[in-house]
Amino acid sequence: MPPIVTAFATSPDRGRGLARDVRVRWALEEVGEPYDIRLLGFAELKQPAHLARSPFGQIPTYEEDGLALFETGSIVLHIGQSRAELLPADPAARARAISWIFAAVNTVEPPVIELQNAVLLEHDRPWHGERLPAVKDRVRDRLEQLSAHLGDAEWLDGAFSAGDLMMVHVLLRLRPSGLLDEFHNLAAYVARAEARPAYQRAFAAQLAVFEAALQGNP
Amino acid sequence: MPPIVTAFATSPDRGRGLARDVRVRWALEEVGEPYDIRLLGFAELKQPAHLARSPFGQIPTYEEDGLALFETGSIVLHIGQSRAELLPADPAARARAISWIFAAVNTVEPPVIELQNAVLLEHDRPWHGERLPAVKDRVRDRLEQLSAHLGDAEWLDGAFSAGDLMMVHVLLRLRPSGLLDEFHNLAAYVARAEARPAYQRAFAAQLAVFEAALQGNP
Repeated sequence: MPPIVTAFATSPDRGRGLARDVRVRWALEEVGEPYDIRLLGFAELKQPAHLARSPFGQIPTYEEDGLALFETGSIVLHIGQSRAELLPADPAARARAISWIFAAVNTVEPPVIELQNAVLLEHDRPWHGERLPAVKDRVRDRLEQLSAHLGDAEWLDGAFSAGDLMMVHVLLRLRPSGLLDEFHNLAAYVARAEARPAYQRAFAAQLAVFEAALQGNP
Repeated sequence: MPPIVTAFATSPDRGRGLARDVRVRWALEEVGEPYDIRLLGFAELKQPAHLARSPFGQIPTYEEDGLALFETGSIVLHIGQSRAELLPADPAARARAISWIFAAVNTVEPPVIELQNAVLLEHDRPWHGERLPAVKDRVRDRLEQLSAHLGDAEWLDGAFSAGDLMMVHVLLRLRPSGLLDEFHNLAAYVARAEARPAYQRAFAAQLAVFEAALQGNP
């Protein structure tokens, strides 16, 4: 039985690949592992059946041989630990790649989420225009540091790893804001990752779900 | 040589134990491993020597036998993986505990950071009072789900694990807001963790650093 990954039946981003199931699809494509998708409507996310898999009612989850995991960082790490392609074999290099997974979700993503909340949840509040520049600057602070670390390197620490996969997907969520394009090496880093065949397969698969839903043919 | 952990020379929270080095001190106390602390002033955080350890100029970092790690989630996971006390031996239970580490830093902590930013960085802005309730509600949404999951259980998933350690420290950062006390089972969960001798040793050690700095005797 292939693992089962949950995803939105109708992606809120209209197939742009920003929902977090893409991280798991991409990781599974990198390691060449087939998977099944279970699509969930928004109401189903809050039902007991899904909360038993995902206590915060989120997608994606990952089920394999009776194991049920939540949180993309945890799922991508699990996939990387049990197959060879996503984490270096050398223990020190592997531990550093895991540091980058956490940097993606706990240092870079929080200001990205704050910006997303400002744009999605507070765009009609009277303070929105005056507040937005400071929120963007908090994102820029992190991008400057990440850009300085990356320099002219291809990936964050040696070969492509699960750390790059997680970081790139966090950065992709910034593209609509224009902030990513302020840092040429980061924009090129993201484009390099998007050119990977595994990413392209993952992106196409989530887009196909959205287009099928659009045609009422899920 | 014991591992070396970096921490603030002068804790911005005045010894209340909210800086992230406490997570690493606590994990090392749980596994009974001695460690050395290297204290850094704020200016040192942005120096090349520290940026080589921590690309975002943060504390804590962890150095051991030539391995240098950053991000508390990664460090606590590393400590848990190489010693027995912080992660279950059963692979499925271990993978779920790691899901909880990620839930702490990527699902619960981002709205906590947003609230902290509102209080620390935007308290003097004209919109602060009107905006704060919605920011608090975003934290409450996560606490409600976490409280529903925990129920009457002692810890998040079976025995105390690195997932509890990370979650409790994220929740501790909410105590000044009063939000934690709105959820009795979460307040009791945090108090149960604080009563652990390993936590108490970690807390006392960071407090001693602050008090020594106060007396000009670091």
